[in-house]
Amino acid sequence: MENGMLKTEALLRLSAIGVLVLTACLVGTNTQTKHVFFSVERKATVKDLDALVILVIVESVTAFYHLLQLGKYFAFPRFKEKKAISYETQAWICFMLDQIVTYVNFGATVAAAQASMLAVTGSRDFQWMKVCRIYKRFCFQIGGSLTCGLVASILMIMISTFSAFNLFRLYSPKRFLVFKG
Amino acid sequence: MENGMLKTEALLRLSAIGVLVLTACLVGTNTQTKHVFFSVERKATVKDLDALVILVIVESVTAFYHLLQLGKYFAFPRFKEKKAISYETQAWICFMLDQIVTYVNFGATVAAAQASMLAVTGSRDFQWMKVCRIYKRFCFQIGGSLTCGLVASILMIMISTFSAFNLFRLYSPKRFLVFKG
Repeated sequence: MENGMLKTEALLRLSAIGVLVLTACLVGTNTQTKHVFFSVERKATVKDLDALVILVIVESVTAFYHLLQLGKYFAFPRFKEKKAISYETQAWICFMLDQIVTYVNFGATVAAAQASMLAVTGSRDFQWMKVCRIYKRFCFQIGGSLTCGLVASILMIMISTFSAFNLFRLYSPKRFLVFKG
Repeated sequence: MENGMLKTEALLRLSAIGVLVLTACLVGTNTQTKHVFFSVERKATVKDLDALVILVIVESVTAFYHLLQLGKYFAFPRFKEKKAISYETQAWICFMLDQIVTYVNFGATVAAAQASMLAVTGSRDFQWMKVCRIYKRFCFQIGGSLTCGLVASILMIMISTFSAFNLFRLYSPKRFLVFKG
């Protein structure tokens, strides 16, 4: 693999880690307390919506995964030289893992966005109230963090395109699933 | 491109069209009428949840897209022979379109699943009632159609892996973004 390409991929993973951690922190630390009646306080936290809890977990695990991938490049250069497993197998594992992580992360972000959307719009047919009318600041912060989550997803789609490129360029353009000489 | 590979891709697209149309029909035609009070009837339809309406539209458009892609293989073989655009450009367009369509479709399916999940579980914190306690048959049919939607998404992930393979195998395994001789 070329040095420039390696650097670009590492940079993409580093940016993804930054944005993922930012998203997890923004969602996880979000709270707002409101006086519902004179003496009754109601606190909105991330725990009110399962989709948000799942998002925080998924973003954290994904950030850790990309950290491990970065470690593979920087901390263990000898591992690659030893060639314990072939380059093709490495590329396949990397491709599969990146695909799974990207889709799971994208799914978690979309699910959180959908649940939050229902908190904004409510549902007249189902008699679900518009929760965001009460917790405005909470909802604005969730909106911001979901935008971060979207940026993270786009970065990860780019990363998985990179790893698809790294894998499939090894194959012959003429024959199916045959490696180049 | 090899004949066998072309056939496999066409078969995948054909299966995707079938499952997508099935999903759209199952979701779109789903209704249940209930007597809420003695004389008051309440009808649950797909229009009660925006996410389900969006799912029907996205699945239909996606099915049409794959139909066009199939048409490209079968109805216009001469188009390919004329080479109005180079094979590389074709592969890039196909790859980009497949990626976009796959992610949009996956997103729509996940969003619909999340909204439906809230209809099943409700939310005690937000005082959202469990709508699926009332419309049981409706909810079971939505569950079945979302399973179909998931199958369609998996088929489309396979298709976009195919088109990534078709594109990136054209590139040199040694130098970055340089075509093979």
